[in-house]
Amino acid sequence: MTYCVGMKLDKGLVFMSDTRTNAGLDNISTFKKMAIWEKPGDRVITLLSSGNLATTQSVVSLLEERTKLKEDRIPTLFGVPTMFQAANLVAETLQEVIAVHREGGQQADSQFKATLILGGQIGDGDPCLFMIYPEGNFIEASSDTPFFQIGETKYGRPILVRAYDPEMSFEAAMNLLLVSFDSTVKANLSVGAPFDFHVYETGALTVGNTGRIELEDEHFQNIANGWGAALKDALDSLPDFSLDNK
Amino acid sequence: MTYCVGMKLDKGLVFMSDTRTNAGLDNISTFKKMAIWEKPGDRVITLLSSGNLATTQSVVSLLEERTKLKEDRIPTLFGVPTMFQAANLVAETLQEVIAVHREGGQQADSQFKATLILGGQIGDGDPCLFMIYPEGNFIEASSDTPFFQIGETKYGRPILVRAYDPEMSFEAAMNLLLVSFDSTVKANLSVGAPFDFHVYETGALTVGNTGRIELEDEHFQNIANGWGAALKDALDSLPDFSLDNK
Repeated sequence: MTYCVGMKLDKGLVFMSDTRTNAGLDNISTFKKMAIWEKPGDRVITLLSSGNLATTQSVVSLLEERTKLKEDRIPTLFGVPTMFQAANLVAETLQEVIAVHREGGQQADSQFKATLILGGQIGDGDPCLFMIYPEGNFIEASSDTPFFQIGETKYGRPILVRAYDPEMSFEAAMNLLLVSFDSTVKANLSVGAPFDFHVYETGALTVGNTGRIELEDEHFQNIANGWGAALKDALDSLPDFSLDNK
Repeated sequence: MTYCVGMKLDKGLVFMSDTRTNAGLDNISTFKKMAIWEKPGDRVITLLSSGNLATTQSVVSLLEERTKLKEDRIPTLFGVPTMFQAANLVAETLQEVIAVHREGGQQADSQFKATLILGGQIGDGDPCLFMIYPEGNFIEASSDTPFFQIGETKYGRPILVRAYDPEMSFEAAMNLLLVSFDSTVKANLSVGAPFDFHVYETGALTVGNTGRIELEDEHFQNIANGWGAALKDALDSLPDFSLDNK
């Protein structure tokens, strides 16, 4: 499994992805699940992927290769005029890869599935965030649903639902994501550190803050330990349950 | 789906179950998923169930009917000498019900599956808590794994993992469970209020505090609303993430 989150804030977009992949329990590896395309001053596009690793790597490689083609007739991530077109292109590429593997003779087509989060900004357009399904269709984040999760989404969802605020700072959003990721890692073996992140500020049109947070990262450890204590305090602050009244 | 938790504390056992059952999204109902057998001064046994409702209701009805038999040769929940034997009896009954339905001609035997949490105390024995699988085997809670969840377990797990403490009071445990249930309800349509609970104090050998918490229950609303605010405070209390250092 995997855990990735893309989040739309008033200030911009924040992405975080784990790096654990596994085929069964006894075959785990570390792979980057975040790909970024940048044409400074024109566009920045970030892709997070969950699902079959062969599929998602193919999708990223195909998208990457095509950006280097000289031919103009094939649409590329560097050529599309809007984020909607970019989502279309990625969705088509995903469909294509799944179809090829499926035709290869395998019956279990579900095994080749992948779900993607795509976000970024092109030119004068607003920053956009999409979730792309293996079927090749996609949805866009709105103020009602301002973030997308893919992979092992359930453990980390309650804190996002409660504490997300479109006006929050990038620093607060990073803390929120780290708590959500830590909650998932603590409960599920198929999600693991290090975590990759990308903080994109609206209008920048260049790659923002990116980096990798290791398990032993001091700040992450402070968050992980501090959060346990903070939760206990939060529980203690709730009104007392009175067993006598029931 | 369903969400039920059985928890072992130093002071006793705490059980909570939701009441939503659904066949698809457009057919939801309310059913009690908690059954309690009591022989005052001798034993109290609580059963929580998730899975196929026909299966779990059959199991409860069979167990119930047999406690009323005059015949001594058939083991009943009122006759077994230990909690281990009680778990054995419930597991056998569960297996029996699943086998009957499966032999009825249906192929999708997974649909008849159910998972149970059984807890209680008999005579001089210690309070015990078991998780019973549809295959008819079961595991017992220990100090390493002091609580069991069944049904839609993921959303409510992080808070239990972090805040559970065997020394906590019953009141604190009820608050913890309400937060865990609220987190689940907020994220998943297949789990819903009202919630049934049973707080059993070690050595009592009579039914403890039981009751039903409705969605509009004032305390539950205070918890649900207070928790959102408390979580935001908890997030704010974390050390600042510095984007410049990355």
